[in-house]
Amino acid sequence: MNIYADNAATTKISKAAAQAMTECMEEYPGNPSSLYSLGQRAKEKLEQSRAEIAALIGAEPREILFTSGGSEADNQALLSAAMIGKRKGKKHIISSAFEHHAILHTLKKLEKNGFEVTLLPVHENGIVRVDELEKAIREDTCLVTIMTANNEIGTIQPISEIGALCRERGVIFHTDAVQAVGHIPIDVRAQNIDMLSASAHKFRGPRGTGFLYFRKGIVLSNLIEGGAQERGKRAGTENLPGIVGMTTALRESIDGMDAANAHKAEIRDHLIEGLSQIPHSALNGDAEKRLSGNVNFSFEGIEGESLLILLDQRGISASSGSACTSGALDPSHVLLSIGRIHDVAHGSLRLSIGDDITTEQADHIIKSVKEVVEYLRSFSPVWRDLMTGKREFILK
Amino acid sequence: MNIYADNAATTKISKAAAQAMTECMEEYPGNPSSLYSLGQRAKEKLEQSRAEIAALIGAEPREILFTSGGSEADNQALLSAAMIGKRKGKKHIISSAFEHHAILHTLKKLEKNGFEVTLLPVHENGIVRVDELEKAIREDTCLVTIMTANNEIGTIQPISEIGALCRERGVIFHTDAVQAVGHIPIDVRAQNIDMLSASAHKFRGPRGTGFLYFRKGIVLSNLIEGGAQERGKRAGTENLPGIVGMTTALRESIDGMDAANAHKAEIRDHLIEGLSQIPHSALNGDAEKRLSGNVNFSFEGIEGESLLILLDQRGISASSGSACTSGALDPSHVLLSIGRIHDVAHGSLRLSIGDDITTEQADHIIKSVKEVVEYLRSFSPVWRDLMTGKREFILK
Repeated sequence: MNIYADNAATTKISKAAAQAMTECMEEYPGNPSSLYSLGQRAKEKLEQSRAEIAALIGAEPREILFTSGGSEADNQALLSAAMIGKRKGKKHIISSAFEHHAILHTLKKLEKNGFEVTLLPVHENGIVRVDELEKAIREDTCLVTIMTANNEIGTIQPISEIGALCRERGVIFHTDAVQAVGHIPIDVRAQNIDMLSASAHKFRGPRGTGFLYFRKGIVLSNLIEGGAQERGKRAGTENLPGIVGMTTALRESIDGMDAANAHKAEIRDHLIEGLSQIPHSALNGDAEKRLSGNVNFSFEGIEGESLLILLDQRGISASSGSACTSGALDPSHVLLSIGRIHDVAHGSLRLSIGDDITTEQADHIIKSVKEVVEYLRSFSPVWRDLMTGKREFILK
Repeated sequence: MNIYADNAATTKISKAAAQAMTECMEEYPGNPSSLYSLGQRAKEKLEQSRAEIAALIGAEPREILFTSGGSEADNQALLSAAMIGKRKGKKHIISSAFEHHAILHTLKKLEKNGFEVTLLPVHENGIVRVDELEKAIREDTCLVTIMTANNEIGTIQPISEIGALCRERGVIFHTDAVQAVGHIPIDVRAQNIDMLSASAHKFRGPRGTGFLYFRKGIVLSNLIEGGAQERGKRAGTENLPGIVGMTTALRESIDGMDAANAHKAEIRDHLIEGLSQIPHSALNGDAEKRLSGNVNFSFEGIEGESLLILLDQRGISASSGSACTSGALDPSHVLLSIGRIHDVAHGSLRLSIGDDITTEQADHIIKSVKEVVEYLRSFSPVWRDLMTGKREFILK
């Protein structure tokens, strides 16, 4: 039985999106910047895609900038807001402790350039508190950037409340919605979002494509300089097949969102219930305010890496956290941010399920994780110390 | 008869490259950063592609950074070299007057940050002179960036000589080889190239994919911060299908290069001969040291835009210069750099042919251009002034 349970890392492109890309390559081979009809046809297709993406998140077409993915969108959003702030003498930025590294590393860069960054705590449930954000906003705050849903523990942030507060206080609000777009409803206008980053391959679109929504009135700074594409804000020949594939995938995802979420939430809760039976384990992040596809557990006394390898041998593709930081020996900054100490954070498992998951597969996952955790604990010196009382249990 | 003669703007993806992408999406759906076997298979495929690309240009695998295209590669190359220079107190950069805007605009950004830029002239033939470069190199020169082949007039620069000189003088040499890779032989080691930018869609690969070659020892600065992909130098989930498509296309292009160049050069020379018969016209750029697929003419007394529209009506897709600057009313900086004055630069035509071009198509192009130029001149006030002696001819 092969079960792909790492959809937060990447999703398999949908048939319709792949087909749309192939057709686009064949039927729209022109460069959208070219004057002749082949180019203008490509330009029209590009603008149709832009309009459709915009409509799907409640934006206007000219508020959509196509990028090579979520990381690029995050980088450009933060640098743009920082430049806007700098011009007004505002150099304070608020974010959260468990943002994706595309945010945190860009903030580090900005700190080196004289910006001051406040990272809000996300507490045990993995959710930012709006009252704490309110207290953190200063006269010189130029940007609040809080992710819509966390990539490791799937917790959904109070984006509408944050948006309303930021709008009221005149602070630009950006959200890294890479894990959220196509998975939960987004309406940038209703939610008072000023900038939003999205990545196609997280909602069954192609790799190498994403977009940045930026509310009209916000002047973007360029990350990639050069040609006049994207109204001069992002150089490089537009990846039209990728954009068309992304548009198809987003439409599909949003059309099927309610059904997918109902199904995934049911399986998610089944998984949480099953895995909770493992002694000295704990769900990471809020049980309710989380993506329907996300399950994240810590198991005391084991190493996450061994767990993943043994699950892989049983046909289960899962992860311990972000794929973007795999290979790093440090424990997840996300799990540390919700108060898991190093030892426990190391023994973690993220399951991010797709809408094709079956109950039978979920049962296979539960059974496998139970067996593998038990097996790993059977020769874990940490577990022995815990069982003999030399060490104290942290979980339960 | 439909003739696509704008391959310098973009090429139609090859069947093999498109097929390779489709197969990759199906067979390698994992995230290359993931630990489990599905991820590791994707990682292997990624590294195979890297090794193949490296071998095709005489580099080592770890010297290849995958990017979203040529513009991104250009931006990162220049910013990286500038940072290396800055650390050594060297803040002088040499480039040429007719580089692509991905270079020129990035240089402008660097100038605002305290760098000094010398743009070498490219003379009437559109070729940088090595003795002039030699004189321009200073103690504080940290970077020479000269394109391998120009995107508008196709002139090929003395890259090997420039590389040898830069190596001797200890200056980093970057070349924007977007128009050259896959079209003329490149050997970064033999040519002493330290950094090189390439774009897949210029050699029948997919849009949204490119690479930066950087000689080992050169420490790149990040343009896109975030995850640890590309050894921490370029964040974002790798666009594996795009990379695989690019690799396929580059292999194909290099395998077929000699035959394609022989055929294209023959047709190119036939086009040049035919178009030269139009009175008061001139070939732009050196007749010999140019890409086999490039023909660029100026015609006195006409507007390039009208020429393109009327050629389009006859089934010919051509351009007046770079697609990246279309929509701009300024005359081409490339044509100005080789001494064409504004009026003449405006009346220009770039034909960039592919290897499927036939003599019959070339004859149709020649006939069409002749007729359209004559037609446009028939009601051009400038032409009337020229014919009545109120204005002096510049060409011939």
